[in-house]
Amino acid sequence: MITSTGNPLIKQVRSLRQCKVRRAAGLCYAEGLRIVAEVIQLGAELEMLLVAPELLVSEFGLGLVQEAHKRGLPVIEVSESVFKSIALKEGPQGLAAVVRQRWHFLESISGEEQALWVALSEVADPGNLGTILRTADAVGAKGIILLDDTTDPYDPTAIRASMGAVFSQMLVRCSFQEFAVWKAKNGFSLVGTSDKAEKAYRQVKYPERLILLMGSERHGLTEEQWRLCDVVVRIPMIGRSDSLNLAVATGIVLYEIFHQRYGVNTERQPI
Amino acid sequence: MITSTGNPLIKQVRSLRQCKVRRAAGLCYAEGLRIVAEVIQLGAELEMLLVAPELLVSEFGLGLVQEAHKRGLPVIEVSESVFKSIALKEGPQGLAAVVRQRWHFLESISGEEQALWVALSEVADPGNLGTILRTADAVGAKGIILLDDTTDPYDPTAIRASMGAVFSQMLVRCSFQEFAVWKAKNGFSLVGTSDKAEKAYRQVKYPERLILLMGSERHGLTEEQWRLCDVVVRIPMIGRSDSLNLAVATGIVLYEIFHQRYGVNTERQPI
Repeated sequence: MITSTGNPLIKQVRSLRQCKVRRAAGLCYAEGLRIVAEVIQLGAELEMLLVAPELLVSEFGLGLVQEAHKRGLPVIEVSESVFKSIALKEGPQGLAAVVRQRWHFLESISGEEQALWVALSEVADPGNLGTILRTADAVGAKGIILLDDTTDPYDPTAIRASMGAVFSQMLVRCSFQEFAVWKAKNGFSLVGTSDKAEKAYRQVKYPERLILLMGSERHGLTEEQWRLCDVVVRIPMIGRSDSLNLAVATGIVLYEIFHQRYGVNTERQPI
Repeated sequence: MITSTGNPLIKQVRSLRQCKVRRAAGLCYAEGLRIVAEVIQLGAELEMLLVAPELLVSEFGLGLVQEAHKRGLPVIEVSESVFKSIALKEGPQGLAAVVRQRWHFLESISGEEQALWVALSEVADPGNLGTILRTADAVGAKGIILLDDTTDPYDPTAIRASMGAVFSQMLVRCSFQEFAVWKAKNGFSLVGTSDKAEKAYRQVKYPERLILLMGSERHGLTEEQWRLCDVVVRIPMIGRSDSLNLAVATGIVLYEIFHQRYGVNTERQPI
């Protein structure tokens, strides 16, 4: 059992809080029972499991450790104080994982029927990005295309907000220019959102093989991005503000697409 | 100009980061051009404006200070270092306000046609609460009813996430018991959400005078809350998870209600 917070391995794990360390190592740090369970169940590439026996009391959690042992995955035991020195949340549950990042190329995107993707441009807030991953999972999207300087989906805040969806959704990172070139050669339609669009988001019949493009929190879509879109839709608003939180706006449009694809009985019954 | 970070007034302003201080004083701290503009335009009760002339370069911001002077509102000048000692955001814009909290009683809720409210039970995350306030504003809701231990809408994170809607939406705080008694005597319908509900959120014709009840992030609705609802709806999901982020889920249901109320041309056109 590792009992020193200055242990080199523990220092390395802690350094995964920094984006540049995560990128260089191609790893990330995931914490908590639910997210570690997702990592194991999804067969994500686990570098190691970190367990604090003094903290891990949940039977579900102990089962996960057994499962990891069974699969021959490296399990490192650490003391309570060591675990707390790496933990991000207060009251940690005593289970964390170092997981290998998994990235795909634009060219790996298959144009199967009903393929749905989300592209995010310059999204700055890892909480928003994680929340969008979680919603993308819920509507059966394939993954997220992160354009230009969009924040890191393997940021601990993004991982937590995604509730593990960062390990089930496909992730692609590229520049907008690369995306535009790829898009011209593929059969995907691109739908953007803007408060300046003419059509409301419920006035469009969404095509199969669709990418929903969301602009940054601060600036929305650039002119160049707008031009690449096959259609741009707006979300109507009657309050004082002309915008919604980015993750909420993404959720509203994704659920309209979802409804058009899978909605069955839409006869509305009075309560 | 106040130049000492140890100045008693500055200490008091800083102490508004703590919920118990905010409650005892009935005040809150709001920062940034956009939110301060909302405070002034909405006629919220401004205790004082804090200005750092070395930081405030925006013409829009200087106009707000002029406006405050014109209205005879107290404007306190502070040095850059003092402002940075109270600021929550990095790179502050040099404008902040101390604003009086404004609370309403359940009995102040009027049963006008199309009155729409959101009730939140034990919501823990101030970012979620602020985001819900922002969406509530966008769909024309009247306000938010905060049940039991729901977090503080005047938390700086909630204020920021609300983009100022915390000052335009009506706020009511009460226990679930008080809410239940009040509800029995009033003509509001109560709609809950749960992944265990039978009806999907688009299968219900939402009545006028409606309160949307959302449970806590961790536990959703309690049995008692479920029983008080006139209908409980679910948001369909086909991914790995059985839940969405609370603010996203609230936004999706609010936008269905909004659409049923105000949606005009719903003929869907292919792009």
